[in-house]
Amino acid sequence: MSGGGTIRTIGLLGGGVIGAGWAARAVLNGLDAVICDPDPEAARRIAAVIDNARTALSRLTLAPLPAAGTWRVVRRVEEAAEAADFMQESLPEREDLKIALLAQAERAMREGVVIASSTAGLKPTRLQSGLRRPERLVVGHPFNPVYLLPLVEVCGGAATDAAACRRAAEFYRGLGMHPLLLRRETDGFIADRLMEALWREALFLIRDDVATAAEIDDAIRFGPGLRWAFMGPFLTSRLAGGEQAQSGPAPKWPRTRMTDVPDLDDASLERLRDSCLVGILQTLKANRIAGGAALAEYEAALWQAQAAAARHMSQAAAPLHAFAGRIEPGWIDYNGHLTESRYLQIFSHASDAMLALIGADTAYVARGHSFYTAETHLRHLAQMHGDEAFYATVQVLGADAKRVHIWQELHRDADGAVTATCEQMLLHVDAATGRACPALAEVRAGLDPLVAAHAALPRPEAAGRAIRLNQRG
Amino acid sequence: MSGGGTIRTIGLLGGGVIGAGWAARAVLNGLDAVICDPDPEAARRIAAVIDNARTALSRLTLAPLPAAGTWRVVRRVEEAAEAADFMQESLPEREDLKIALLAQAERAMREGVVIASSTAGLKPTRLQSGLRRPERLVVGHPFNPVYLLPLVEVCGGAATDAAACRRAAEFYRGLGMHPLLLRRETDGFIADRLMEALWREALFLIRDDVATAAEIDDAIRFGPGLRWAFMGPFLTSRLAGGEQAQSGPAPKWPRTRMTDVPDLDDASLERLRDSCLVGILQTLKANRIAGGAALAEYEAALWQAQAAAARHMSQAAAPLHAFAGRIEPGWIDYNGHLTESRYLQIFSHASDAMLALIGADTAYVARGHSFYTAETHLRHLAQMHGDEAFYATVQVLGADAKRVHIWQELHRDADGAVTATCEQMLLHVDAATGRACPALAEVRAGLDPLVAAHAALPRPEAAGRAIRLNQRG
Repeated sequence: MSGGGTIRTIGLLGGGVIGAGWAARAVLNGLDAVICDPDPEAARRIAAVIDNARTALSRLTLAPLPAAGTWRVVRRVEEAAEAADFMQESLPEREDLKIALLAQAERAMREGVVIASSTAGLKPTRLQSGLRRPERLVVGHPFNPVYLLPLVEVCGGAATDAAACRRAAEFYRGLGMHPLLLRRETDGFIADRLMEALWREALFLIRDDVATAAEIDDAIRFGPGLRWAFMGPFLTSRLAGGEQAQSGPAPKWPRTRMTDVPDLDDASLERLRDSCLVGILQTLKANRIAGGAALAEYEAALWQAQAAAARHMSQAAAPLHAFAGRIEPGWIDYNGHLTESRYLQIFSHASDAMLALIGADTAYVARGHSFYTAETHLRHLAQMHGDEAFYATVQVLGADAKRVHIWQELHRDADGAVTATCEQMLLHVDAATGRACPALAEVRAGLDPLVAAHAALPRPEAAGRAIRLNQRG
Repeated sequence: MSGGGTIRTIGLLGGGVIGAGWAARAVLNGLDAVICDPDPEAARRIAAVIDNARTALSRLTLAPLPAAGTWRVVRRVEEAAEAADFMQESLPEREDLKIALLAQAERAMREGVVIASSTAGLKPTRLQSGLRRPERLVVGHPFNPVYLLPLVEVCGGAATDAAACRRAAEFYRGLGMHPLLLRRETDGFIADRLMEALWREALFLIRDDVATAAEIDDAIRFGPGLRWAFMGPFLTSRLAGGEQAQSGPAPKWPRTRMTDVPDLDDASLERLRDSCLVGILQTLKANRIAGGAALAEYEAALWQAQAAAARHMSQAAAPLHAFAGRIEPGWIDYNGHLTESRYLQIFSHASDAMLALIGADTAYVARGHSFYTAETHLRHLAQMHGDEAFYATVQVLGADAKRVHIWQELHRDADGAVTATCEQMLLHVDAATGRACPALAEVRAGLDPLVAAHAALPRPEAAGRAIRLNQRG
């Protein structure tokens, strides 16, 4: 059980949703997978899951994944077992079936290879009862989708060697997972017991006609579910504002075993909580679901109010203060500064505000015309750090029928220092054809007074410059 | 109860965590708040919450919030009640206290003003028992932090006018919340009953020494909690891969009332689920918490493996294929194309890969030196759309002791078309002083052969160009 060599091939018993998820996680982490599944459709189903997983992983991380491993479906248990450096069983939840096939697999497995069961509820002490070397069996219980959710509950039975649990945990960690080693075996382990408690209560609410299934889903995902994604119930209760105390029939056990939650002070924990909630809500907005859908509606109403107000904004001979905000911690790169693409994101918002001002707003875009950025020249003059407030200004350098030439500056709010400049050429486009065309009269009516007002401004010295290493270029 | 006019001022009874959260949400949405709280520290506490909320909201949305309203703390219930166009009570969860103060407030309130209670567990039929106009009382139960979580449970009592519930829901929606109208009153409404079921089971697990509080939190947040943020238990069970079926003692009620979950086909629901999980995990990575901490560790291992491999990469007279990926749906802007800042994000990753190749990797940065981008010139040649695969190339145009001049191209994978170019000047910097300095010998040893190899490549025609509207610039 000690060591057991490098794991290059995973043997899988069962290629259903969970087994296919294991195959995907293993193959995309460079392992080969041999999957035993008698279903003639298994290869097609597994290919589809691996395809989903490849898409998801390429979006999840920009870190360089190893070259994908190979995979094949076999019909004989022994074929998967012989090839395996690690064995994972994901058969239907029938104890007799699992015990029989685990024993059959074991006879073909090499010495020292760990065999893990994906069971969500069966006890490892029972599952290992038919094995010749029961010390090699552990439960490694994952969650769907296996290729994305980090949790895997690792639990040994009465006969399990602690080294087998360690080896399984190390293997799972190498696949990017978070192994949770259970201190004792119990029906349903931990997460499923908690999920079932929630599920039971939900069914009671439905039976009593208090709520429908969709209402229950909404009660979770617009509220406490957003916190559960990164704080469990105990960390949440630290900041619950008396919610837990308010609630009625909660049991009152001594809380001496509840003291191992991370020891952050409340103010830090609040900031961390808010930062996570902000990011999660923004993600859900991009996916137009749950709390993100509510956010999108709210923002649409705010933008509409602004567009109505913008028409009345005066056009003075001063750069437009087009956008202001604060540098997010997540925008900081490995150098400790604002990462370069975020500069352009800020300038994008500022130029969008200028475009809304001249009438090229989202309603104009919806009617089929828009300004696209044709070129951008960014210059970085000073670093910006986390939590610094900023504002961005826009100066119109010139315009013709189809183009607007602008000069933007990013200012540190504290001292007004220019930290970056952004020169851009915007091109007016007919979205249907994708070709440049003259801006419509309604936008010219907004643009021309702005061009006239800004003609009085001094031209920035660095405008129109090229990037050059030396005289030769 | 019909209409009641525009709501400009919210009256608040109680300025604890929940009351202060209401104040923050209201004030930052342009309303004035008058908060009754006898605590001499109330104003300080509320100011801190509003400050947190301002930071969170400025990060949550770039949409233009209205100018913030004013707020003040008063000691007399009547002062808050007289000013209120909408009344929200967030007192401690003592029925007698609430009934008495609600009645006291009502005597000073104008006709038609709705009074909502933030109670998490008391029934509105009881709370309205002391009112002269009980039809105006509703429960509006929010979740902490009130300024970020969208859910508010709206529940009338036996005497409540349905118009009061509608008016409260409309008011909350205007504040960016998601009102959930309850079909009947019940102890603990919906979300708290579900939270308590989870909480009770968690306490059983602790009592039985199955898990510690931190382990329970981990079992939630590394696993099912990630799904609960956007799918409730019912939507989850649709894709659970038999998890629910596997699990042991779930009750077996008829599911005729469980059919109102959204009717997406499974493949679409899977893609949506994966897309949300990817975004949530990335958010948690930026905050180094839970599933995001696991992801960060995993990525660090992958980058280390690549850095070791990169040293052996050959340096041929061809642009480096530095980075490849796929356009995310969330990267698409209102024009339906890849949003401009994402171009620079992609080019950033490509130039980082080039820097890692020459030895200026994260370990080099950790030792105190780095290349910063001094200037960037982006040119957009064709649009990129959601889900398109791409790759980015890097060509080194030249270098001196302190600078590297590069030319990058973004290619559509399908046809190899160049969709954007990015010319950049990178400056070698001593991070301690923030000043340019010559690159260290170890990096020169990686850079010089690359410069020599790329010297044989044709110089891109558009390199060294400036942005110009016309001859004059």
